Amino acid sequence: MTEVVRAVPGVRVLGLHSDPDHNRSVLTFAGEEDAVLSGAVALAKACAAELDLAAQSGEHPRMGVLDVLPFVPLEGATMEDAVRLARRAGENLGSLGFPVFLYGAAAAASHRRKLPHVRRGGYEGVAARLEDPLWKPDYGPAMLDPHKGAVAVGARPILVAFNAFLDTGDVEVARAVARQVRESGGGLRAVRALGLRVGGKAQVSMNLTDLEQTPIPVALEAVRSAAAKHGASVESTELVGLAPLEAILQTARYYLALRELEPDHVLETRLYDVPES
Amino acid sequence: MTEVVRAVPGVRVLGLHSDPDHNRSVLTFAGEEDAVLSGAVALAKACAAELDLAAQSGEHPRMGVLDVLPFVPLEGATMEDAVRLARRAGENLGSLGFPVFLYGAAAAASHRRKLPHVRRGGYEGVAARLEDPLWKPDYGPAMLDPHKGAVAVGARPILVAFNAFLDTGDVEVARAVARQVRESGGGLRAVRALGLRVGGKAQVSMNLTDLEQTPIPVALEAVRSAAAKHGASVESTELVGLAPLEAILQTARYYLALRELEPDHVLETRLYDVPES
Repeated sequence: MTEVVRAVPGVRVLGLHSDPDHNRSVLTFAGEEDAVLSGAVALAKACAAELDLAAQSGEHPRMGVLDVLPFVPLEGATMEDAVRLARRAGENLGSLGFPVFLYGAAAAASHRRKLPHVRRGGYEGVAARLEDPLWKPDYGPAMLDPHKGAVAVGARPILVAFNAFLDTGDVEVARAVARQVRESGGGLRAVRALGLRVGGKAQVSMNLTDLEQTPIPVALEAVRSAAAKHGASVESTELVGLAPLEAILQTARYYLALRELEPDHVLETRLYDVPES
Repeated sequence: MTEVVRAVPGVRVLGLHSDPDHNRSVLTFAGEEDAVLSGAVALAKACAAELDLAAQSGEHPRMGVLDVLPFVPLEGATMEDAVRLARRAGENLGSLGFPVFLYGAAAAASHRRKLPHVRRGGYEGVAARLEDPLWKPDYGPAMLDPHKGAVAVGARPILVAFNAFLDTGDVEVARAVARQVRESGGGLRAVRALGLRVGGKAQVSMNLTDLEQTPIPVALEAVRSAAAKHGASVESTELVGLAPLEAILQTARYYLALRELEPDHVLETRLYDVPES
């Protein structure tokens, strides 16, 4: 699958993460608009040809063989660019026979902004809602092929997956902390959090979905604070996958009380050229 | 001056900082070994042709029109590479008629490792020591041209200039803090520090000369601690010039208790190619 994307000129594959429990993979690739669009279309065609939704099951909810396609603006691109690109991709994938639901910043209506709502109930949930005018696909047929499913295409800021390991094995502490810090519990904006047990330790597992609203250090300090109320502390943390440079700069600015810290201040940014497309 | 360096193929000029009080400029440029060597030689020739040491005075000690030439290993280069390059540069500049003193990791003897010792007394001090066998130049003539002076050529790790502004205007507090945290006061290794008054605030001005020995967060926490003993705290900080990515990653690892954080985890490092020379 990765190969068909890598083969597109101007596309740079940044990573592939496959999870056996979820029975799901996440492929990350970057490039200029047209290249990334071509990569997405190539990926969708390959998924339709090689995967069978009816034969797939796993821990993670899903509604299609290409389940979700988020466009994230990087250097020099704006959210408006990403939204426009998501709509072009939606149109393309619709022509390939996928029912397409726009979400995130690309959503056509506010009830469709959040991915968990668009995908609620997975394939079966989507199938049940197809007749509801509120849940008509934005592109493609208003009927589902059980081997292919539907796809959510969106535009959103970069997401950081960040886990905090507590110095206790009591998963209830992690759950309580997660409930307190996450947005849906009245906590920090643009933070999703779960309490899990990983390797015998309680872990607060977070998705930071908008670093301008809640940067990593703010999330961590909230976890430390909430954990302390339960007599626990954060022993260590980890980033899952990639983080943008800005997240690291935000972190340094926060803890060092730096008056400013921009990519320009980082020596290596002055050494590299953005590759020609 | 910058133009003759910029004109060398394969050289990338990273910055020029000129200080009117010091009457001194610092030019930073990078590239592969041969390119950087050519840039250094071009710079030395231009300095000899266009500057006159006998006509120059300023706040900062100096011994030559090209006063100091440190080589710093970046990506893929080792300290051994930098030392070897410093010696090649020394040989070249010696042939141009500069007395050359190797310092830092390139020093031929331990008493010449530290730049302040090599340059002690500026031009006059160097002139007075020329007859001393301990202070013979490593390359070039054992006599000084008063219009050109001498040059210190060395190899060292990247240096970070980092200032902490205190919430007091009392410069004595900054001086006491500086004395406590700097290496020469029995404090942190590879840290030079001064207490200054800048814009009505007390400032602890630091040079971190080896981030593996003392990273930025360790230096800052020592300043915070020492300042607290004087009833003061750090209001804000600033980086002067560039910092390597590793310094920012160290900072994030320290405060976030990250199990690991490498350049590979930073998305932008995966987008850029190192330019061809």
